[in-house]
Amino acid sequence: MNYLLSNKVASLAPSAIREILKATSQPGFIPLAAGNPAPEAFPVDDVRAISARLLEERPIDCLQYGVTEGYQPLRDLLLARLDIAASTDDLIITSGAQQVMDLATKVLCNEGDVVISESPSFIGSLNTFRSYGVRLRGVPMQSDGMDIDVLEDILRGEKNVRFIYTIPNYQNPSGATMSLTKRKRLYALALQYGVLILEDNPYGDLRYEGDAIPSVKSLDKDGIVLYAGSLSKILAPGIRVGYALAPKPLIAKMTVGKQASDVHSSMFSQLLVHEWMKTCDIAAHIAKIRDIYRAKRDLMCAGLQEAVDAGFLCYNRPAGGLFLWCDLPRQIGMIDIVQRAAKKSVAVVPGSAFAVEASDPINAIRLNFSTPTNPQLTEGLQKLTTVLKEAST
Amino acid sequence: MNYLLSNKVASLAPSAIREILKATSQPGFIPLAAGNPAPEAFPVDDVRAISARLLEERPIDCLQYGVTEGYQPLRDLLLARLDIAASTDDLIITSGAQQVMDLATKVLCNEGDVVISESPSFIGSLNTFRSYGVRLRGVPMQSDGMDIDVLEDILRGEKNVRFIYTIPNYQNPSGATMSLTKRKRLYALALQYGVLILEDNPYGDLRYEGDAIPSVKSLDKDGIVLYAGSLSKILAPGIRVGYALAPKPLIAKMTVGKQASDVHSSMFSQLLVHEWMKTCDIAAHIAKIRDIYRAKRDLMCAGLQEAVDAGFLCYNRPAGGLFLWCDLPRQIGMIDIVQRAAKKSVAVVPGSAFAVEASDPINAIRLNFSTPTNPQLTEGLQKLTTVLKEAST
Repeated sequence: MNYLLSNKVASLAPSAIREILKATSQPGFIPLAAGNPAPEAFPVDDVRAISARLLEERPIDCLQYGVTEGYQPLRDLLLARLDIAASTDDLIITSGAQQVMDLATKVLCNEGDVVISESPSFIGSLNTFRSYGVRLRGVPMQSDGMDIDVLEDILRGEKNVRFIYTIPNYQNPSGATMSLTKRKRLYALALQYGVLILEDNPYGDLRYEGDAIPSVKSLDKDGIVLYAGSLSKILAPGIRVGYALAPKPLIAKMTVGKQASDVHSSMFSQLLVHEWMKTCDIAAHIAKIRDIYRAKRDLMCAGLQEAVDAGFLCYNRPAGGLFLWCDLPRQIGMIDIVQRAAKKSVAVVPGSAFAVEASDPINAIRLNFSTPTNPQLTEGLQKLTTVLKEAST
Repeated sequence: MNYLLSNKVASLAPSAIREILKATSQPGFIPLAAGNPAPEAFPVDDVRAISARLLEERPIDCLQYGVTEGYQPLRDLLLARLDIAASTDDLIITSGAQQVMDLATKVLCNEGDVVISESPSFIGSLNTFRSYGVRLRGVPMQSDGMDIDVLEDILRGEKNVRFIYTIPNYQNPSGATMSLTKRKRLYALALQYGVLILEDNPYGDLRYEGDAIPSVKSLDKDGIVLYAGSLSKILAPGIRVGYALAPKPLIAKMTVGKQASDVHSSMFSQLLVHEWMKTCDIAAHIAKIRDIYRAKRDLMCAGLQEAVDAGFLCYNRPAGGLFLWCDLPRQIGMIDIVQRAAKKSVAVVPGSAFAVEASDPINAIRLNFSTPTNPQLTEGLQKLTTVLKEAST
């Protein structure tokens, strides 16, 4: 049978990263491609104790249907941790932050509408936007965030822009952080052009130096920012808990959308997160995982020094997050590097996977430092340096 | 700010049932509205032991990212339980069966396409279809399943029908089961008109008498049936585990869609279900919950006898599932009954909530017998009988 697919998904391809992950998940591969938290960053003892307690004291609450908006005490706790003045009604629990992208696009976009994104950007979100048949426009990333002048050009030229997608902190994949000045300009432009902002902040807590910069949402006096948060990077991604914070009319519609998508997120997961946030020392845990990842970042930077000195690549050291974006010189092709690395059992992602528009000029690789063990990091970067040498001759 | 919503969600309303549930979830209300499993039907001891073991032996597998298709050993086990010949590649794990509806519609339907459904039908699925801007056509339910002659009329008259939605076993809300004869006719018609079938089977294991009837999917020699299964009614809904079984090209596209929706379903939930299916006596557990629900159904039927004898309502006793559909005579209005019952702290759902098309002539209420305790059932039906008496005079 010849299956007729909807226009919006017909040309949709699986995430290149998740395909690379499948291809390189055999034992022996050095994983510099994924964005998995380090196993030692999971608070396993806490999760074990909390699960036992929950299933002892209130098993039915963990197993029974819940309301679509999410577990009320968890919504309260999540809101209290943010630098944002809002009420619990403005926040819903989602099945990971990915679902915020899904619900926001579903609620806001007709096919053919325009979404503006930093370029490069997180392929998972880009694919969600694409899955609703929107047209993507990319704004080049700079070391202090998106190029606001290009953003303004696009806003001036495009009708039907529905929202601007940004990851202001330790952006995936570039590692860049948007300055406060640019956050304010972004906000002012969005307001001027009557466009919403979708602010995705999965890495905000993974800050390895410097001070936190206020979220774009914290500037939102006009109800134009949708904020996506996640527990994936500070607690665990496998349990799928994220949240959306947005103006009430949008939260109400996203709730109806979520009802139609998956009814509600896992109650067991939600109660687990709630109990963890309520009874454990979250600040101490975050300090601990910052130390783990800062050390890994530094190990990666050290391992890349020879290649940098030889002119094989260049990068801006990220102040947080999980990724290093390495631009390659013209004579070294990114696909060639990815393939050569794979032959040496090292998995890296070509920068093209994160392109917003097909025409975006990208010759880069993205490296992840959270997934590999420290010995894997050292070995992987030695191999990568060898590969770069071979490719450049 | 005036928020511009997408056409497909602009007119979408929250599920009437979930709203009724919120309104009637105060303590003291007798819950005949929801479809929650009975607390005593959860295998709490098993879940407790399995969770402890999983978090002791392989915590990282529970907490780390997984692949979008789902946990492979669970996919194998789920397939092995079905009366369907297929390979594991034809099956993906979803965040509840609700997500099967979401992904199937997303993959198959453009706005304006037609979906045919039994009428009345499960509001959760109908709202999912609506959330993609499809046009719904309803086929009246009869005691042995949908009216196949009307189905044929619709298929003859409508272009762009993408699929036929059916709950063949103990349908929600009607309680009716489709005969094998009708399943075969449905299949033959779908094949003849080149239309897919979306078979939703959340209640199949909740059979209180008679023999199981082969699934429509088991008749599928031509790759035209998408099958949705769920763990919500036999294990627990709160952990959100369902699955889709469909031809490979559709599963492949649904997987890409799921990647964009929520990346994957909770790994902890998936491992929990797998371990439960692998190590526990599932058949004995299902026999136990059948006994629980059969007794509740019979208690409900006994409690309705006076109202039936007085001509206040009539129903077909369902051979399985969780619901009783009560048609009301013309002189008793369903909304009046729902409101009068609520005043007496009894929650029931008006049949109109399950209408496929606004013009469907429905004057009925749906009663659920799994959620209330047995004393609540008796008390609730006494109050309902009083309400019916009052409304009919």
